[in-house]
Amino acid sequence: MSVTAESPASPPGTANEMRSRRSGGREARRAMRAAPLADDVRPIRPGLEGGTYRALSDADLGSIHEAVLTLLETVGFANAIPSCIEALTRAGATLGTDGRLRFPRALVEDTIKRAARNFTLCGQDPRHDMLIQGRRVHYGTAGAAVHLVDVEKREYRESLLQDIYDAARIVDGLDNIHFFQRPMVPRDIPDPLDMDFNTLYACVTGTSKHVGTSFTVRENVAPALEMLYAIAGGEENFRARPFVSNSNCFVVPPMKFAEDACGVLEACVEGGIPILLLSAGQAGATAPAAIAGAVVQAVAEVLAGLVYVNAIKPGHPAIFGTWPFVSDLRTGAMSGGSAEQALLTSACAQMAQFYDLPGGSAAGMADSKLPDIQSGYEKGITNVMAGLSGLNLVYESAGMHASLLGFCLESLIIDNDMLGMCQRCVRGIEVSEAALSIDTIAEVCLNGPGHYLGNDQTLKLMQTEYFYPAIGDRFSPKEWNERSKPDILSRAIAEKKKILAERFPRHVSRAIDDRLRTRFGDLIKLPRAAMGL
Amino acid sequence: MSVTAESPASPPGTANEMRSRRSGGREARRAMRAAPLADDVRPIRPGLEGGTYRALSDADLGSIHEAVLTLLETVGFANAIPSCIEALTRAGATLGTDGRLRFPRALVEDTIKRAARNFTLCGQDPRHDMLIQGRRVHYGTAGAAVHLVDVEKREYRESLLQDIYDAARIVDGLDNIHFFQRPMVPRDIPDPLDMDFNTLYACVTGTSKHVGTSFTVRENVAPALEMLYAIAGGEENFRARPFVSNSNCFVVPPMKFAEDACGVLEACVEGGIPILLLSAGQAGATAPAAIAGAVVQAVAEVLAGLVYVNAIKPGHPAIFGTWPFVSDLRTGAMSGGSAEQALLTSACAQMAQFYDLPGGSAAGMADSKLPDIQSGYEKGITNVMAGLSGLNLVYESAGMHASLLGFCLESLIIDNDMLGMCQRCVRGIEVSEAALSIDTIAEVCLNGPGHYLGNDQTLKLMQTEYFYPAIGDRFSPKEWNERSKPDILSRAIAEKKKILAERFPRHVSRAIDDRLRTRFGDLIKLPRAAMGL
Repeated sequence: MSVTAESPASPPGTANEMRSRRSGGREARRAMRAAPLADDVRPIRPGLEGGTYRALSDADLGSIHEAVLTLLETVGFANAIPSCIEALTRAGATLGTDGRLRFPRALVEDTIKRAARNFTLCGQDPRHDMLIQGRRVHYGTAGAAVHLVDVEKREYRESLLQDIYDAARIVDGLDNIHFFQRPMVPRDIPDPLDMDFNTLYACVTGTSKHVGTSFTVRENVAPALEMLYAIAGGEENFRARPFVSNSNCFVVPPMKFAEDACGVLEACVEGGIPILLLSAGQAGATAPAAIAGAVVQAVAEVLAGLVYVNAIKPGHPAIFGTWPFVSDLRTGAMSGGSAEQALLTSACAQMAQFYDLPGGSAAGMADSKLPDIQSGYEKGITNVMAGLSGLNLVYESAGMHASLLGFCLESLIIDNDMLGMCQRCVRGIEVSEAALSIDTIAEVCLNGPGHYLGNDQTLKLMQTEYFYPAIGDRFSPKEWNERSKPDILSRAIAEKKKILAERFPRHVSRAIDDRLRTRFGDLIKLPRAAMGL
Repeated sequence: MSVTAESPASPPGTANEMRSRRSGGREARRAMRAAPLADDVRPIRPGLEGGTYRALSDADLGSIHEAVLTLLETVGFANAIPSCIEALTRAGATLGTDGRLRFPRALVEDTIKRAARNFTLCGQDPRHDMLIQGRRVHYGTAGAAVHLVDVEKREYRESLLQDIYDAARIVDGLDNIHFFQRPMVPRDIPDPLDMDFNTLYACVTGTSKHVGTSFTVRENVAPALEMLYAIAGGEENFRARPFVSNSNCFVVPPMKFAEDACGVLEACVEGGIPILLLSAGQAGATAPAAIAGAVVQAVAEVLAGLVYVNAIKPGHPAIFGTWPFVSDLRTGAMSGGSAEQALLTSACAQMAQFYDLPGGSAAGMADSKLPDIQSGYEKGITNVMAGLSGLNLVYESAGMHASLLGFCLESLIIDNDMLGMCQRCVRGIEVSEAALSIDTIAEVCLNGPGHYLGNDQTLKLMQTEYFYPAIGDRFSPKEWNERSKPDILSRAIAEKKKILAERFPRHVSRAIDDRLRTRFGDLIKLPRAAMGL
């Protein structure tokens, strides 16, 4: 076999390899051998098509859709702000004497028909563009964790702006994490404007992948847009290739508009930022405990948001962000790592496909506090089911713990392997004449060596059909012993330190950063030293 | 909410609860509250129906079937023993001048039609009976690990007879592990007869769930049968309710009969033991590297076995045991925790359904050496996909590490939670009028409190729709901190020690054990003291 096993310490696509690809001679040749294959022959890649798992039957999908239309028509939404009322009543919604906006079926169905679909969420680097379509699957981060998980000290500490920047640049080099929505809140930056602006700054300077972020209030969007336009080289450039989307909790479940978020939504639509219409009810608390009911409510809420966006600006890119969460009904606490969560998320993926809308939901949120076996199975089960469902955007898929309360940089590195495994599962099984292997089996059994080691087919498929973990350990007990029993957490810690010491992305040039710092002055809180500048 | 959270230290169905259900008064009432619900209203139970995940399309299934028939007809099997040749040629197979037995399509198709299906694998206790049918899913152990994983010392040591007995009694009390196939080899018992006999003895005295075991040679089956007949209270009783099946590697892939195992197979069929027809090729080594090809070979091999069993005794219960494994093609080592393994196993589940035969395959085999995050996602992903595929018998699903080389008692306890989660996912989503929750949502939004806490629906579904882990941790970071950061491994170690100190199953009575020890004398190696007798 001609391909060397990847050293577990240098997964493809991490800082190490990126560096060596830039230098010449022997290093370059070595890097070439270890370099990822071209996209079309790699065993996994962004946008693989799922859909082999279907939690809901066609009849179920229809029933849910009908229930949704009934709810929108009869229950509707409370707490709309004046501009929302104006836009929606103009579009055909009715404002009841109880202050609730109700949505006639025709309005909802017409919106679904005409809404934006099959669009691209861009990276600053076009090779990270994601075509959001059909059952194409992408995995990424998300969240608003208030803690960073310190694996070495086994403790939770407040998350900081630097942690967001560090998470961004780790994700920037991990092949199997396709986008970066801000996963933590910078607790060292209490002022909402400072927080919004710097969160976004840390994200977009930390990675050239697509970024998602939130804004606290409408007013915070303008300076952010100014920054984004500057980085894009002008407003038109940004509008042509928006590399940031707005994660927008426009709804307070059940069925109420969130006033501040609606203001943000309007400003983002205006400014050319795609909207993630995020409904985050919690089954048993702010959504029905029945799984189907939680799906119904989430779909109704997101469709209301879709009507809203399209009433303001027809065809504005919006993601069908049904994110129902789960309560542990014994305690009321959220349980992101539960089976019920996996089912909810998978059902939502199908509802997005039912409407042929770009869908995003959450998976990978471990209840466990640390990267341990519990967090492994919670993340693995929820993420693979989301992917097999063909969910377009799997948010929260990497790094998250404690049901969204703690984010872990080491887990990002481990989860990159797990997500690679999920993606290989999503890719599925090729059943072709060659893959059925009749001739290969006959040859091996009747004329051959009686085994497939070194067989042409084996060599051919080694790189193109099989996925290999970067830091995951496949040693035999003997090898494992001889290597002093390597521990995956220690390996992840070491890899994290290496990346953070070495990887300082430069897609936002020093010149632009100079301009941003001149323009925004003290508003920018991330010191240049911390960015390796 | 009226139901108390289960104490993480006493999962339902473990020693603690079993004991208390036997005592009276206040203890009994407390136990009643914590006791499992009746089967039909429990959120999960053995035999839930999968099938929502389909790795293969209908066309794929047909292509694989065609390839299988071609292979059996043209390549056939080498190394048949005389009795096998006699039975198979009598049935219609042809012996070529190259010594290979070939199977005409009509013979294979006729066998498939007439083979045993929809049968029950019995437990000694009938409440552990498993109806193997359609897409009903059961999870259990299996394997022939040569090491026990010592979690406290972080080391692999040789596995012993006592470990098998301990594993059996741990599984006996874990609700989400439905059968016990011997997972380890007793390295302290080198003699093959001693080993086979005592392995079985440790299994059937350790648990009243269905047991699977192997025999080294034909001659070892007779004393085992004598033991089993004695425990059953007579040969007829055992034949009516066989609570042991024979895990039989009758094939040495690719496409050769295993001589000793075939002798064992014949003796087991004769003695009334159901056969697990186990084909364990390894893709890229003893099976094609192409996933579809590995499935084709496995199906061909198992169907040959099925023809063999039915040629000896038409309608004898046999499990369609396509167990293709995966090689890491860089090293040739087995990788049980890989994505490719998950796909292979899921495809095999569908092939069994294609034939409407009772199917068993392997999932849950972690590559990782210890119960860590890697083992968690490897086990979770492979097990949930197997279950969602509707695999009837998911072997190796609990306790296994190092790609079958190490078995871990603590992992059994943790995996019981993971398998509960998988089963909840298999159960899926109920979409009924009530579950769609239109009225509930309307009431909460329009007239209600604006949330679902304490709602009738929430209270009703708390116990019947939601699965709760027994030792898995859903604390908030604050609670986790206050409880001194509980570690799942420490909790599993403590629970294991408690079970092993307290749980000594007595379904095989002292009187029968006396008779066995009188009859078999020194052949029985497990001391009574070690069995709490």
